[in-house]
Amino acid sequence: MSALQILHRDPGSLARAGVLRTAHGDVRTPAFVPLATKATVKGLEPREVAALGYDIVLGNTFHLFLEPGADLIERFGGLHDFMGWQQPIVTDSGGFQVFSMGYGTVADEVKGRAPSGPNRMGRVLSIEEDGVRFRSYIDGSEQFIGPETSMQVQAKLGSDLALVFDECTPFNIDRDYTARSTERTHRWLDRCLAWHDAQGPAGQLVYGIVQGGVHEDLRVESAQAVAARPVDGIAIGGSLGADKAQMYEVVGWAISGIDEARPRHLLGIGDIDDLIRGVELGVDTFDCAMPTRLGRHGVAIVPDPANRWRVDLTAARHRESHEPIMDGCPCPACGGGHSRGYLRYLVKNRELTGARLLTLHNLAYVARLMAGLRAAIAGGTLAAYAAAQRAGAAP
Amino acid sequence: MSALQILHRDPGSLARAGVLRTAHGDVRTPAFVPLATKATVKGLEPREVAALGYDIVLGNTFHLFLEPGADLIERFGGLHDFMGWQQPIVTDSGGFQVFSMGYGTVADEVKGRAPSGPNRMGRVLSIEEDGVRFRSYIDGSEQFIGPETSMQVQAKLGSDLALVFDECTPFNIDRDYTARSTERTHRWLDRCLAWHDAQGPAGQLVYGIVQGGVHEDLRVESAQAVAARPVDGIAIGGSLGADKAQMYEVVGWAISGIDEARPRHLLGIGDIDDLIRGVELGVDTFDCAMPTRLGRHGVAIVPDPANRWRVDLTAARHRESHEPIMDGCPCPACGGGHSRGYLRYLVKNRELTGARLLTLHNLAYVARLMAGLRAAIAGGTLAAYAAAQRAGAAP
Repeated sequence: MSALQILHRDPGSLARAGVLRTAHGDVRTPAFVPLATKATVKGLEPREVAALGYDIVLGNTFHLFLEPGADLIERFGGLHDFMGWQQPIVTDSGGFQVFSMGYGTVADEVKGRAPSGPNRMGRVLSIEEDGVRFRSYIDGSEQFIGPETSMQVQAKLGSDLALVFDECTPFNIDRDYTARSTERTHRWLDRCLAWHDAQGPAGQLVYGIVQGGVHEDLRVESAQAVAARPVDGIAIGGSLGADKAQMYEVVGWAISGIDEARPRHLLGIGDIDDLIRGVELGVDTFDCAMPTRLGRHGVAIVPDPANRWRVDLTAARHRESHEPIMDGCPCPACGGGHSRGYLRYLVKNRELTGARLLTLHNLAYVARLMAGLRAAIAGGTLAAYAAAQRAGAAP
Repeated sequence: MSALQILHRDPGSLARAGVLRTAHGDVRTPAFVPLATKATVKGLEPREVAALGYDIVLGNTFHLFLEPGADLIERFGGLHDFMGWQQPIVTDSGGFQVFSMGYGTVADEVKGRAPSGPNRMGRVLSIEEDGVRFRSYIDGSEQFIGPETSMQVQAKLGSDLALVFDECTPFNIDRDYTARSTERTHRWLDRCLAWHDAQGPAGQLVYGIVQGGVHEDLRVESAQAVAARPVDGIAIGGSLGADKAQMYEVVGWAISGIDEARPRHLLGIGDIDDLIRGVELGVDTFDCAMPTRLGRHGVAIVPDPANRWRVDLTAARHRESHEPIMDGCPCPACGGGHSRGYLRYLVKNRELTGARLLTLHNLAYVARLMAGLRAAIAGGTLAAYAAAQRAGAAP
């Protein structure tokens, strides 16, 4: 039986709304998953994340593996108890982070960020069939992650939803390498499933990962190959292309190879327009650093499509602004009466309160958008809701 | 009429409890005043500070004068509106910060901190009868603060309670210099009062500052000289000695020169034992960076007199600890079920959530202590309450 109960379907797109059942409760879908990379949504308490309307967060296997280590978290009763969040948790596999080191720029490319240096997360020593050997960015120690390690770490973390260990190829890799890499990702998928079958925690869902770069045949084949395995859900990973048009095309190819019943997760995507389009393409869950990371750096999400739904509060023009980030927004920053001028001052002066208020605002915005999308699908008004959002309506 | 209404007196000490009336409401005394140095209690929203039980915060004239500037804050309607805190605000005069630059180590000495370099807040160019000329730590620009500047800035900030501009002498300055400096502080007091009389905002209370170093005669003379002026209250500043015994002696001398009716503020003191003793000595309000700064650096306040009421959660021994900071504490860290092990992990990894949870815990502890002291004075049980606190009772 699928972990996803589909309750509503949009007649005009592939969008669906429902409930994803996990060991720690239900996730209303489509859903955005805030990052709790290092066992915390940066700056927020778990109760605040729940109060914003989120049902699930994402913990980072790679970072938690290195510090404080999966064994320690296991001795605390798992990641839920360690971080004090008793709702669902998804853990990524660590593949993305490990291969970001190897290729140097894959993270930047996939995420559309400025390059931040090849050694930000450590240094790869070898990539072999067995897995990846690398140096820790924390203490320089030699470390290894392979399919079984990743599943074992995720078992110790006790997440509700584990992602299999995949090779995440960057955009600038050629078709042949991508094809061979995708094959390896499928072999690693089998090893992950074998380990999980034998030793995985009861009740932990496992998602396979579709790779295949920007090649239609590879993406469709990969999706079909993953969907042919007994995975509880399917995540779409890797490079999704050079621009949004290509990204939507790639996501469409991947989903075309997945059966209807299987829950689908889109990895690392969270721009407002991408969330809307992703839902229309049939994505059930999304995770992304964007709302929280932008917030910490002084960028707020606003209903302004012409500016990518963003306003940079560090800009000098906000210095004297008495306006809130967004009229009518109930978040602690806007509802609390804080002006753009004050928030700009806080952010420019690196005050924790500024990072926090903007994080709260951004997550509140995305939470309302996802709730709006769910309600629109249920009410048969998705086309109108999406059009209004794209025209700059408040979520 | 005194701004302080004394409602209860402790028969066994000089302690009193009451209400300090200000333009933005009442402050229950004795009270601790959390620092909102740069228009924010670091990491917290105003509503959270109020929810912890605090009636008043302290804004820093020196820092706000440099950035974002008093004119900008005035255009936002004053500091209350700028930072979204509609309860009482006290602003310091900037004297402490300015003279900390000049003497290099006065801040460290007075606060008992490790030296942090002479130029942390800028560089003094000249100290003259008119005031102090210095270079801004923000942009290197030449700046000037004197008695009138300080009062003017505090008028623009619109605080409920302004402190006069004083010369803050360090511990290692000789008696003669201290005597001459104290005289200058009194001349500056007159200039501050003259400016405030002519141009100060209606309803803004003005506190004079007692100096005189660690010399009994100078302290008593200074207290009498300040109390002879039409000040609304009196703050005790400057070096309070080499150890706690001397500090209590110096505070006692100062208070002996102040009339009963006048509210008394003790500047920059906030250790748990000092708060208890200060209340017994007749202090009405205290401000200190300690609870918030320690929290941001991973040190929590606990009922452990043998360890100065502190536990350093960054210590390795807390790595596996499942215990809360403090049993029965209702703060978000303890009441939220967070273990010392998790908090240690957050703090070691410089996660905002760690700084925030420890700030909340420490401020919650001090708020309960002050509420306990007020209730004990009102109930005639201060001696027993203070003895229990000194023996390690929960506040």
